[in-house]
Amino acid sequence: MLIHEDRLFPADPETRTVARRLYGEVRDLPIVSPHGHTDPAWYALNEPFPDPARLFVVPDHYVFRMLYSQGVSLESLGVPTVDGSPVETDPRAIWRRFAENYHLFRGTPTRMWLDHAFATLFDIEERLSAATADATYDRIAERLVEPAYRPRALFERFDIEVIATTESPLDDLRHHQAIAASGWGGRVVTAYRPDPVVDPDFHGFRDNLEAFGALTGCDVSTFAGYLDAHRARRAFFKAHGATSTDHGHPTAATADLSPVEAEALYHRVHAGAVSATDAELFRAQMLTEMAAMSLDDGLVMQIHPGSFRNHNPQLFARFGRDKGADIPTRTDYVHALKPLLDRFGNEPSLSVILFTLDETAYSRELAPLAGHYPALRLGPAWWFYDSPEGMRRYRELVTETAGFYNTVGFNDDTRAFPSIPARHDVARRVDCAYLAELVVTHRLDEDEAAELAHDLAYGLAKKAYRL
Amino acid sequence: MLIHEDRLFPADPETRTVARRLYGEVRDLPIVSPHGHTDPAWYALNEPFPDPARLFVVPDHYVFRMLYSQGVSLESLGVPTVDGSPVETDPRAIWRRFAENYHLFRGTPTRMWLDHAFATLFDIEERLSAATADATYDRIAERLVEPAYRPRALFERFDIEVIATTESPLDDLRHHQAIAASGWGGRVVTAYRPDPVVDPDFHGFRDNLEAFGALTGCDVSTFAGYLDAHRARRAFFKAHGATSTDHGHPTAATADLSPVEAEALYHRVHAGAVSATDAELFRAQMLTEMAAMSLDDGLVMQIHPGSFRNHNPQLFARFGRDKGADIPTRTDYVHALKPLLDRFGNEPSLSVILFTLDETAYSRELAPLAGHYPALRLGPAWWFYDSPEGMRRYRELVTETAGFYNTVGFNDDTRAFPSIPARHDVARRVDCAYLAELVVTHRLDEDEAAELAHDLAYGLAKKAYRL
Amino acid sequence: MLIHEDRLFPADPETRTVARRLYGEVRDLPIVSPHGHTDPAWYALNEPFPDPARLFVVPDHYVFRMLYSQGVSLESLGVPTVDGSPVETDPRAIWRRFAENYHLFRGTPTRMWLDHAFATLFDIEERLSAATADATYDRIAERLVEPAYRPRALFERFDIEVIATTESPLDDLRHHQAIAASGWGGRVVTAYRPDPVVDPDFHGFRDNLEAFGALTGCDVSTFAGYLDAHRARRAFFKAHGATSTDHGHPTAATADLSPVEAEALYHRVHAGAVSATDAELFRAQMLTEMAAMSLDDGLVMQIHPGSFRNHNPQLFARFGRDKGADIPTRTDYVHALKPLLDRFGNEPSLSVILFTLDETAYSRELAPLAGHYPALRLGPAWWFYDSPEGMRRYRELVTETAGFYNTVGFNDDTRAFPSIPARHDVARRVDCAYLAELVVTHRLDEDEAAELAHDLAYGLAKKAYRL
Repeated sequence: MLIHEDRLFPADPETRTVARRLYGEVRDLPIVSPHGHTDPAWYALNEPFPDPARLFVVPDHYVFRMLYSQGVSLESLGVPTVDGSPVETDPRAIWRRFAENYHLFRGTPTRMWLDHAFATLFDIEERLSAATADATYDRIAERLVEPAYRPRALFERFDIEVIATTESPLDDLRHHQAIAASGWGGRVVTAYRPDPVVDPDFHGFRDNLEAFGALTGCDVSTFAGYLDAHRARRAFFKAHGATSTDHGHPTAATADLSPVEAEALYHRVHAGAVSATDAELFRAQMLTEMAAMSLDDGLVMQIHPGSFRNHNPQLFARFGRDKGADIPTRTDYVHALKPLLDRFGNEPSLSVILFTLDETAYSRELAPLAGHYPALRLGPAWWFYDSPEGMRRYRELVTETAGFYNTVGFNDDTRAFPSIPARHDVARRVDCAYLAELVVTHRLDEDEAAELAHDLAYGLAKKAYRL
Repeated sequence: MLIHEDRLFPADPETRTVARRLYGEVRDLPIVSPHGHTDPAWYALNEPFPDPARLFVVPDHYVFRMLYSQGVSLESLGVPTVDGSPVETDPRAIWRRFAENYHLFRGTPTRMWLDHAFATLFDIEERLSAATADATYDRIAERLVEPAYRPRALFERFDIEVIATTESPLDDLRHHQAIAASGWGGRVVTAYRPDPVVDPDFHGFRDNLEAFGALTGCDVSTFAGYLDAHRARRAFFKAHGATSTDHGHPTAATADLSPVEAEALYHRVHAGAVSATDAELFRAQMLTEMAAMSLDDGLVMQIHPGSFRNHNPQLFARFGRDKGADIPTRTDYVHALKPLLDRFGNEPSLSVILFTLDETAYSRELAPLAGHYPALRLGPAWWFYDSPEGMRRYRELVTETAGFYNTVGFNDDTRAFPSIPARHDVARRVDCAYLAELVVTHRLDEDEAAELAHDLAYGLAKKAYRL
Repeated sequence: MLIHEDRLFPADPETRTVARRLYGEVRDLPIVSPHGHTDPAWYALNEPFPDPARLFVVPDHYVFRMLYSQGVSLESLGVPTVDGSPVETDPRAIWRRFAENYHLFRGTPTRMWLDHAFATLFDIEERLSAATADATYDRIAERLVEPAYRPRALFERFDIEVIATTESPLDDLRHHQAIAASGWGGRVVTAYRPDPVVDPDFHGFRDNLEAFGALTGCDVSTFAGYLDAHRARRAFFKAHGATSTDHGHPTAATADLSPVEAEALYHRVHAGAVSATDAELFRAQMLTEMAAMSLDDGLVMQIHPGSFRNHNPQLFARFGRDKGADIPTRTDYVHALKPLLDRFGNEPSLSVILFTLDETAYSRELAPLAGHYPALRLGPAWWFYDSPEGMRRYRELVTETAGFYNTVGFNDDTRAFPSIPARHDVARRVDCAYLAELVVTHRLDEDEAAELAHDLAYGLAKKAYRL
């Protein structure tokens, strides 16, 4: 049996009993997925997933980063190269390589997500290993061709009430339009992620700016025109269901320049050859501009700072971005956010959701900030911390100062479609375990815990993301 | 029932049993409160507290910061404005607003403190909510007019053996004098908090300096005269029971300038228009000067660094300081304290008690420093960490390196008078829970744990603060 | 009874039962000690340890730092002074001072290690205290003269399969040669710790460089000759069993200068009067040079960064280095290691083992780095964190991102010979307790946990250190 019905519940019998009761009331709630990176083409085209390797291994940097760290080459796992030089193409060979190294994932959330998908979607009962590799491969492969394993069928099976994807302002949202036009009932919304036209260090930034102007008909040679282009695309995204924006900056720096300074900065940025200081300042200024627009159009703002992207240049040159080589860095919020907060922090109608890859900020900076400013909320444990221990630390570090109601429920934040139910299930279990501990140590009554379990699993996400 | 007799004890039955036994031996010990911010006027004048809202909501930034973070205006909670523009004055309306949002405090220590006061002082048995708001209000209001609810009666009911308040060097200590003259037996001592005349960034610093000279008759135009003024006020404070000084600086920086440099720095500071660098250097130098004076007069020195005060300028302009907008910042101790330690760190007769709002410093810097230097001790978990999880982390992070005997017992550090017994009770319970876990995992014998429970609840505070 | 058979196992009965089972399978495994600071002269000369005080108190900075922090002078503990001025020489007087302060160690790992040695080596059953001081002293003293308590006998009794010591490149390894020549079967290997000739801030660096040239016959006035000298000594160390190098730098900074820049830097360093910047840059460059040599000769590389050595100048002047006054500092890895990783991070045949004194780096930097780069592994919890809570946090903070197989098993890293079995035992117990918790919360199957317990206690250390 790959997954146990009591998984992640505390061992203490009394606490476990309470956790079970709380979980029993939320296990079957629909999934609200307000932030993630699934491909809208899946829902638009509804084509079958190709094979077990290309479903579970090749696209999942959680999986291949661990294998790579132990000396398994990315080529041998079928990860495509930038220059098209050949890599392994036999999915069964890739799968066997993965299976024989499955012990590397012991103790990781990846293991839990995979086992959950193997067990619940494919009725697999034996642990993956060299010995079971082929049988597991065959089972998954034979299912993937069935209609019940196409994206829309899985979407419904997962009981997804709403899912958000994340797109560039330059995206034409054709897949979202196709979904809407298809008559299919699944709710798939987009989110506005303007990094490609906001971050001067983004690959292709100059070309992106030009395309941004062309797409919107705005004169992006002036700051006013550039901001208008954002307004236009935000409106377009909103018309396709977006309720949020998302900003993935190296730091949480914000700025609040005078109009004259901002205009001058934009001209330097637009002219190209941007200094590192100007690039950082422009990203910083744009967070404040985005907050101003959010006050107007009501889009919730997400800030995901602190990742050192593409830390491994050899790997980047050969395989491109998002290959498991993004590394968290120490992140300051108290000074970084001050310019934005000085201007908009007291606006109850603004909602800025903060994330971190630096756990030290939870209790020291983020909970105190979110426990004071009406405009701030705390996003859930993110990325490397989207795991049982990470989620538990998150609750322990933020609740006492910020409470539960300054948090926003769970994000799965994933491109790995089959992991979505597993991830939400882990979050619900960890939260119920945490709440159960508050109950048995008499810090919370059980009726309150039950209400909170529901809020954390469902209600807060809908409310915080205005879904 | 609002509070359970086993609250905060571990769920595991064996551990809980040990925790109960340990707690049973310390629950009724008198309260030693060596650091806090209660108003000495309460004990001097012994007037009744006005009403439930002005006792529990209006003055407590733990309470209104959480409400504010969820969009409840401070005006509607009766928090007075700087310019006297009108705010809610109806205590019952404030109370109802508080009560209907009481769920926001779930999982916070504020909730525990409030429930403890409601239950033990006012015999309230139902959870505060919109439904119970009026009944609770009435119950509290009717009690507050009784003699048994006046400050001195509560002081005695709380079994406070000694409590320290905190005053500016410019304070005339009239309330402490009145208490002494009154013949009342309660022991209320002051503590010397010289920030208003030490921190060039303190509001009104220049005027404070002048008043400092006038008050002491010292020539504060010279550094020697300025130091003499401190000596004079320290002696005056000591005569009113002070056994400690307290220093609330933005960082833990210390300096040990030559007399010539120090004199020159003081002249720049005294002349006004101080640079940020000079302001920081002067605060740093003054910590070392204060340590030197402590070696002479025996006052224990407390350093409370790392708070970014008044982070929210709009709120500060409208409501002033201490309104829940102080945010912790990353704090270095290893380099910052070195100048002071180089000079005085090996003095066993000096006692410098260190606090932090940056938990990362506990295991990395503070425990190693306190586990080596004779002059250093570690203060308890402070402010945002004065909570069950915060206290538990404190013990787990410092004990293995610094032991128990380099810590100083508990501080309630509060202005919220009715929360004092609750806070000490939480600390005693969390410490007994921690000790019980050491006992059942066979890291400590139970007779040792019992001795430690007593020390942590009572003995260490008296010893460390020389009370 | 000083030590309990269930010590450090979780209180929950189900979890404890699993922990016992897992521990039962690893408790009797031989000790692999791949990194430490025991004195090879012990094994070479096999002389008896002098007396209880000189075995347990005088040389152990864990012990005397705690006593010193509470005002016990180092002189009174017999710690020798630099200038030879007199200190306590009566071992029984030292022992009594230690015994009467034994309560200071409550809750510390030192207490556990000492009790383990007292109980298992000397059959002592009563807790050390003023009352038991003399009886304990007598018992230990009478045993130390027995043949069974000589170093080689203890080595065998401890079931040490292999132990590494740590030597300077200038060491002639005579003791290792003597051990090899003696015919004794104990395996004692050295490790190459080149700080004395790599760190321009190391005491005596200039003289060391000269000796380094003389010893190797290399022309250390050129960078090429200097590097050749390293190659020669590495080969010499390897011939005496070394499988690793070790680098104890103040930071984790690495550099990858051009040959011209590196040569110029070396000339400045060799000329003396090195600036702080050049010193740091040279240490940084040398880590990358050492990695290059490791690729050639296969020595595993250990980096132990982040200690502020000799923080207490008065103490240093009087007693010298390693007297408990080394304090951890905040340590960056993501930027610091990039130059080395850019060049060698993708080499599966290179093995760089990272340690930290800054726990915040575990989940934020070290686990993500080790969970990606083939050349990186994570060393165990180090120094201040070599303790039950420290080890538990280590597992909780790194496992979910880096897994178990990017870690390298346990290091005792000690100069305290009698503590070696205790330290390995603590590590095995803490790991089994952690694994048991994964089992009972259904995150791991018990057969996997058993395999992991074996790997963590034995297999990973042998593999990672190529022993």
